[in-house]
Amino acid sequence: MAGKMSESERDQAVEKLDGWSVAPDRDAIQKTFQFKSFNAAFGFMQRVALAAEKMDHHPEWFNVYNRVDITLSSHDVGGTSERDIQLAEKADRFAKAFQE
Amino acid sequence: MAGKMSESERDQAVEKLDGWSVAPDRDAIQKTFQFKSFNAAFGFMQRVALAAEKMDHHPEWFNVYNRVDITLSSHDVGGTSERDIQLAEKADRFAKAFQE
Repeated sequence: MAGKMSESERDQAVEKLDGWSVAPDRDAIQKTFQFKSFNAAFGFMQRVALAAEKMDHHPEWFNVYNRVDITLSSHDVGGTSERDIQLAEKADRFAKAFQE
Repeated sequence: MAGKMSESERDQAVEKLDGWSVAPDRDAIQKTFQFKSFNAAFGFMQRVALAAEKMDHHPEWFNVYNRVDITLSSHDVGGTSERDIQLAEKADRFAKAFQE
């Protein structure tokens, strides 16, 4: 299990991601994804869900129609870990295929 | 398209549903579903997503691990409609299979 990242480790890692930011009120990272339709948004969620289940590391996410807000944090270490960064990278990769 | 329900129509319909309530801050109905695992929670979401897409009537929903919070309202009529009640009934029916 990856341990909790320090604030500076987390901030550096988030900067390398595409459009992710640190949550304003907690040690977590977040991003809003936009798609053309619910079909695309939920297709994306299905891929992320499978990846999350395989990693045994799950997102907090909100969906309305073509929008998906994702928040990632590692509850077991009380903050952001390398697993959040990995799941964020996967989500970015999956999103591209549904945004074409 | 079903029109907006009056407050009393909505309140009466919600009372007949299983565990749904009127949202505290808007004309919408909501319920929190609990499952044993993310697998069950997301399996449930997949069935609701297919039904929503077929109805062209989509939920606002939040998921974290085994919990799914659903809010239903009909944006086109600015409130609750018969479509929300129908989707709520479907969600309740689907949930049962994933809660066994």
